Amino acid sequence: MSHTDLNSPTFSQIADAGKEMHRLMEDLFPICRSITGNGVRETLRRIGQHVPLDVREVPTGTQVFDWVVPNEWNIADAYVSDTKGNRIIDIRKSNLHVVNYSRPIRATVALSELKEHLHTIPEHPDWIPYRTSYYSDNWGFCLSHKQFLELKDEAYQVVIDATLESGHLTYGECYLPGEISDEVLISCHVCHPSLCNDNLSGIAVATFLAKALGSSHRRYSYRFLFVPGTIGPITWLALNAAQVSRIKHGLVLTGVGDSGPFTYKTSRQGNALIDQIMSHTLRHSGKPYSIIEFFPYGYDERQYCSPGFDLSVGCFMRTPHSQYPEYHTSADNLAFVQPDQLGDSLFQCLTALMVLENNRTFLNQNPYGEPQLGKRGLYKQIGGDSDKAKKEMALLWVLNLCDGRHSLFDIAERSGQKFETVHAAAEILVEHGLLKELPGASEVC
Amino acid sequence: MSHTDLNSPTFSQIADAGKEMHRLMEDLFPICRSITGNGVRETLRRIGQHVPLDVREVPTGTQVFDWVVPNEWNIADAYVSDTKGNRIIDIRKSNLHVVNYSRPIRATVALSELKEHLHTIPEHPDWIPYRTSYYSDNWGFCLSHKQFLELKDEAYQVVIDATLESGHLTYGECYLPGEISDEVLISCHVCHPSLCNDNLSGIAVATFLAKALGSSHRRYSYRFLFVPGTIGPITWLALNAAQVSRIKHGLVLTGVGDSGPFTYKTSRQGNALIDQIMSHTLRHSGKPYSIIEFFPYGYDERQYCSPGFDLSVGCFMRTPHSQYPEYHTSADNLAFVQPDQLGDSLFQCLTALMVLENNRTFLNQNPYGEPQLGKRGLYKQIGGDSDKAKKEMALLWVLNLCDGRHSLFDIAERSGQKFETVHAAAEILVEHGLLKELPGASEVC
Amino acid sequence: MSHTDLNSPTFSQIADAGKEMHRLMEDLFPICRSITGNGVRETLRRIGQHVPLDVREVPTGTQVFDWVVPNEWNIADAYVSDTKGNRIIDIRKSNLHVVNYSRPIRATVALSELKEHLHTIPEHPDWIPYRTSYYSDNWGFCLSHKQFLELKDEAYQVVIDATLESGHLTYGECYLPGEISDEVLISCHVCHPSLCNDNLSGIAVATFLAKALGSSHRRYSYRFLFVPGTIGPITWLALNAAQVSRIKHGLVLTGVGDSGPFTYKTSRQGNALIDQIMSHTLRHSGKPYSIIEFFPYGYDERQYCSPGFDLSVGCFMRTPHSQYPEYHTSADNLAFVQPDQLGDSLFQCLTALMVLENNRTFLNQNPYGEPQLGKRGLYKQIGGDSDKAKKEMALLWVLNLCDGRHSLFDIAERSGQKFETVHAAAEILVEHGLLKELPGASEVC
Repeated sequence: MSHTDLNSPTFSQIADAGKEMHRLMEDLFPICRSITGNGVRETLRRIGQHVPLDVREVPTGTQVFDWVVPNEWNIADAYVSDTKGNRIIDIRKSNLHVVNYSRPIRATVALSELKEHLHTIPEHPDWIPYRTSYYSDNWGFCLSHKQFLELKDEAYQVVIDATLESGHLTYGECYLPGEISDEVLISCHVCHPSLCNDNLSGIAVATFLAKALGSSHRRYSYRFLFVPGTIGPITWLALNAAQVSRIKHGLVLTGVGDSGPFTYKTSRQGNALIDQIMSHTLRHSGKPYSIIEFFPYGYDERQYCSPGFDLSVGCFMRTPHSQYPEYHTSADNLAFVQPDQLGDSLFQCLTALMVLENNRTFLNQNPYGEPQLGKRGLYKQIGGDSDKAKKEMALLWVLNLCDGRHSLFDIAERSGQKFETVHAAAEILVEHGLLKELPGASEVC
Repeated sequence: MSHTDLNSPTFSQIADAGKEMHRLMEDLFPICRSITGNGVRETLRRIGQHVPLDVREVPTGTQVFDWVVPNEWNIADAYVSDTKGNRIIDIRKSNLHVVNYSRPIRATVALSELKEHLHTIPEHPDWIPYRTSYYSDNWGFCLSHKQFLELKDEAYQVVIDATLESGHLTYGECYLPGEISDEVLISCHVCHPSLCNDNLSGIAVATFLAKALGSSHRRYSYRFLFVPGTIGPITWLALNAAQVSRIKHGLVLTGVGDSGPFTYKTSRQGNALIDQIMSHTLRHSGKPYSIIEFFPYGYDERQYCSPGFDLSVGCFMRTPHSQYPEYHTSADNLAFVQPDQLGDSLFQCLTALMVLENNRTFLNQNPYGEPQLGKRGLYKQIGGDSDKAKKEMALLWVLNLCDGRHSLFDIAERSGQKFETVHAAAEILVEHGLLKELPGASEVC
Repeated sequence: MSHTDLNSPTFSQIADAGKEMHRLMEDLFPICRSITGNGVRETLRRIGQHVPLDVREVPTGTQVFDWVVPNEWNIADAYVSDTKGNRIIDIRKSNLHVVNYSRPIRATVALSELKEHLHTIPEHPDWIPYRTSYYSDNWGFCLSHKQFLELKDEAYQVVIDATLESGHLTYGECYLPGEISDEVLISCHVCHPSLCNDNLSGIAVATFLAKALGSSHRRYSYRFLFVPGTIGPITWLALNAAQVSRIKHGLVLTGVGDSGPFTYKTSRQGNALIDQIMSHTLRHSGKPYSIIEFFPYGYDERQYCSPGFDLSVGCFMRTPHSQYPEYHTSADNLAFVQPDQLGDSLFQCLTALMVLENNRTFLNQNPYGEPQLGKRGLYKQIGGDSDKAKKEMALLWVLNLCDGRHSLFDIAERSGQKFETVHAAAEILVEHGLLKELPGASEVC
């Protein structure tokens, strides 16, 4: 039985991967990203140091379904200085200080006018909020409420040294071909500046997932998309409409680094195989989790699950967006996301993909009554350890349900056993000639 | 988008309607109704002052399926008088005093014999019970148990000045044609004398529902039946068998005036659209309610849901029959049924019919990815009020699910939103050309 | 309406049957059974005194699917004696003393070597365990742990005077032809020596079930199998493969004599008619019970439910195997299984089979509206007793659901009434010409 060699990693491998992912986040944290511009380009360049990445440039003005690729935004400097020339709000201290996608400005304004362009979070007076002005002609600054309250009534110089001009939208694509052309899509948004959970965590987990899969035998082909939110997937879908139907399963990765329990938001279909597999994986993870139903808001699953595509794409997160106070603030920083949390999220993704990879359908070659396991030493072969009873039951379940109408995943679900246990039983039975794969039925569900 | 103008009434409109319905009940209360006879005729005449009503007369002896239209019963007087000539039980005090459909009698009887024909409620010694002797050759009187205990051992004169002769069965029909010939049936029984909840309440709500629909644009055609119980719907079904199949949805209205929580008894099908809509309406009503499953007992839904018809007809009530002590007694009077309770029942019916009227299926015209709502000012258009977030979500839900396989009602159910909110979102999207109706698919479910 | 005369037995009949079944157990208890040999032959001979039984002999070496019929085991004597010649472990005291299917031996061994062949239950020091060495070349003795601890360090003579040679596998078959060739299978294993609940209880209940059915009119044909565990049903299935498809429903009977609540383990299909009927029967039994889902372990349902057959065969038990301490020990004796427990188990089986026998599909002959029951005296006919309301409701349910798409069992399930009540209502309606059987639809489900 040819099968993937994507095996369950050990705890120390997970811990190591967690640390490496955190280092990647540290590397990417200072870059000022937006939906277009050099911030994304630089981000993709560094991701490309870990995995083979094709960087695509789509010209401003390109029609992508109902949308048009917007101008490219690049920022050189941004600050507000007081009459003495002190930069009291300064992009060099935090990318969040400038409202993302602000139009350029250079002006002297009174405090009252300035205030109309300032954003704070009164409930968290030390935190800087993250704000954007995509698709609207505006500018602004973000600062802590504490600092806001200390502003004196004087004239301020406002400088946003940015360009908002025709250029390109940039995204990255890592394609890993497998045995079959059916694809698994992993998508994460790369447009947020200096925010860790949203979404350097998703970028880091996607990158290391691609790394792990890149060095494994793959049944499925994998497509990793590193795209700006909303306009990114819409652009990709518009430019690749012909091959969208190859995507059989997918995950949007976002907010996978905080300390909250796992959350899986199902695809629009609600009971797609990926939905069932993520549910199985989290149920057997021994960790707290929740499964939430699809709703047409949130992240880029909105686009993949739009009615014209209706892909089997769910969203894997820890705490859902806006349900943690640090969301879209300067408190979503490198301390907020810990290596172990990243490692554990990566592990759940790998476990789920291992189920996908190994989910095949077999036929019991002795379907009339039970085959005699004893004479084949099968009770012995699996015996010895404390899981003996569970493993024997897995052999019996696999034999009983391998009637061509149940995949290994179906068997795992019906028997209540972990997929891994059922898969191991199937491998033993294949070795003894008691099972044979049913060709072309790997997706029976 | 052509749509009904049957809009959600205001609280004061409901209160006014409640008072008017109560006045109609007061008007009808004194009439001595039965399954046939002038009581029903006079009742229909007065209903006809509110809505256009066709009164049908079906001759005694007409075969209607397994039944035969019975004799017509008319009563001029009925009393029991003592030896001094005092009318101690007197129909002029309450129609309930005579057992309904009693055969005529004029006799002098001893107390012991009289007692065999008397009915009381020992547990409620002040109340007069309501009894009938349909389809059996009998006579009797009903009185309070208190009065019964005071009867002296003397000879009594018993007079029931009634006729039970060949004549007609009378029922009323109010047909309101709509855009399409598919019909919604509203049925209530009109055979009970001087009982308010059962069923002057149903008559009043049906009448005002017909009034409200009569002055609205209607997609569906509506048929209101004011019929004697059991034999009435059987007669109507037998005489209109050819057009029964036009009835797509329906409600039997009864006991809608007491102060108990709403009750909806599903159709025999159990999950017909009307069942789902009534459930949705009550779930979102903010009032206590229960949904009970069909059983082949109760009111005229028994006939509409007989296996040969199996119509999508449920029964809307407040407290179900026989579950309140006043049921079928003189305590089911004009004080037992209050205007607000009638108004609120009417409101639930109107709300449910508004769902039926406005339940259409649309196609998202930009199904690939989300359309750009911002450039159309759609976030602004719906914004401002406190329901903004809910309304934005409704826009997104409608866009996401308008794939031709979901009606607006399906979308309301899946999104957990009120139908009204979803419908309003659809109207906005239609205005912006983002949705188009899918012709002929209005009933996709 | 032709119907079975298998009526609900009275309590005293059940009590009598319980006692007779216990007497049969007493008769069979002393016989030393195994999967092959004279123990089974003698057991079948005695069962054959109660019911007509065909005894089949299948030669050693016969290939039956993946298995081969094993050697025949017969035992004349078995003991361990001390140096003084005292038989300290003696098969004449209990058949359990010898490991079942032990190979012959005659040797003198030291205590240390003997101990490698001894089996005890330290937690229950007075009980003798039951052990087997099927399909392995071994020998051994079982004894109480108390006795084990008293063994002195001396030389022991070990004698197992057994033969393990080419011969036959023996099983019994009682076939009761019915109106139709569709079969109901009742199977029980007959290989355990001197253990009452497992499985003289199953043998006794199966025998008396066959006795009861033998003297009744039968719609179904019934096949009772008295077979050694595992190899027995595999042999029967292999030799009767062509006619297996006649088996439409079935039960494995085992462990039906202990005092625990009833347990029904569903067929592999999970929702077969027999599964629904057993669930219905136990739900209405007024006794504690549980329904457990199929799993591919336990008794001979494993073979009947193997994927090549996937028969509608469940397993009826009281406490499931290994969940009571007496399981497979000398404590599973004649006192452990009481007559009333056997009687009650028999009663549940009979009740369930009565549902199967009487489950037919009828057509309401007056499907348009309700037929007029009053004029036929039907309210009177069923009246009088305290169950009147329930019986009237049954009449109405049967009329309402006899549309050709609901069997009587479906009607019982939907109405929440006992099958018996629904069946009685149907019989009355058939008598009055209101129902007619829909030929060939008896299994509509």
